[in-house]
Amino acid sequence: MEFSSKLLEKAVNEISQLPGIGKRTALRLVLHLLKQPKEQTSFLTQALVNMREEIKFCESCHNISDTAICEICSNKNRNHQLVCVVEDIRDVMAIENTGQFKGIYHVLGGKISPIDGVGPSQLKISSLVEKVKSGQLTEVIFALSSTMEGDTTNFYIYKQIADSGIIISTIARGIAVGDELEYADEVTLGRSILQRLPFEKAIKNN
Amino acid sequence: MEFSSKLLEKAVNEISQLPGIGKRTALRLVLHLLKQPKEQTSFLTQALVNMREEIKFCESCHNISDTAICEICSNKNRNHQLVCVVEDIRDVMAIENTGQFKGIYHVLGGKISPIDGVGPSQLKISSLVEKVKSGQLTEVIFALSSTMEGDTTNFYIYKQIADSGIIISTIARGIAVGDELEYADEVTLGRSILQRLPFEKAIKNN
Repeated sequence: MEFSSKLLEKAVNEISQLPGIGKRTALRLVLHLLKQPKEQTSFLTQALVNMREEIKFCESCHNISDTAICEICSNKNRNHQLVCVVEDIRDVMAIENTGQFKGIYHVLGGKISPIDGVGPSQLKISSLVEKVKSGQLTEVIFALSSTMEGDTTNFYIYKQIADSGIIISTIARGIAVGDELEYADEVTLGRSILQRLPFEKAIKNN
Repeated sequence: MEFSSKLLEKAVNEISQLPGIGKRTALRLVLHLLKQPKEQTSFLTQALVNMREEIKFCESCHNISDTAICEICSNKNRNHQLVCVVEDIRDVMAIENTGQFKGIYHVLGGKISPIDGVGPSQLKISSLVEKVKSGQLTEVIFALSSTMEGDTTNFYIYKQIADSGIIISTIARGIAVGDELEYADEVTLGRSILQRLPFEKAIKNN
């Protein structure tokens, strides 16, 4: 792409560094901002700068939070002995939306992925292991996505806490509620048969 | 979506005001910026602020330009009597990429669209009409997209310059080069038959 303006080119180049945004989309966004009042651009950039400079993470679960201890971790009505291990804030939001989980979270901040240069030391793993070893937990639930990286991360943590004596579980994999069996992938369908539940137990959960 | 942080929420809300970007995508972009060094956010925001505050438009064709008169308008090797009317800078870039046009441009800055609240007075139409009436042009080529808004805009301008005596043309519509006839829409295929060319003329253009 050849631009008639360096200012325009620089803005497009910066935006197109965001994941999933190519040069064409970046140009479309920039032209949109040009058509809007200048305030929209300053609101947008100010919100981004404030967020990046001042964002804080909960000292206990490492989730993004405006307070030193997040709302979930400081809620006395939640079960602080039950910890759900997730990748990032989006997973926390998704699980909170279900209204089915009354424990607390531990946000790793990513998954072990040598290809992306993410090793165990860049994730909040040691503080989780410490929590387990301090004896304050009864159960850890792994809720990472079931990819190679997710499984690697689960196993890496499992090795360090396996002999702690607490319950270590993982969220159920199976056919999604409302899905047709014939369109399910083989691995998921196979697992959902091997890990079948007593019918009475399944209807009780509804 | 419920956020655990007002800073995060504000950044997501601002980004999701951009066209084609929903809350989920906005959250993904914000989380990406949080994982990158702070410099990336400041480079991005600085480029946007600079662009929005300092961008200039060519005084002659109204295209985005860092100089008072853009490179195309100040190029003496181009035919300044032949003006191609386009919607915005993306169309200029697309036509320039073909290398087939040696005239100059007139950038309207949009199309007449009552639904979006865009009337003729918000577009650079009067300066085009003035150029035509001053007698310095021999031909005006309409190159707006062939939508209801594009056709309306073409016709609005046409009515004002029809009696000027200059050639008024529009870019050819037809089956795209390399496309299969069977997949073409009826309007395009019909028009390409009605507006057929002498074969010898068509091969000369290759």
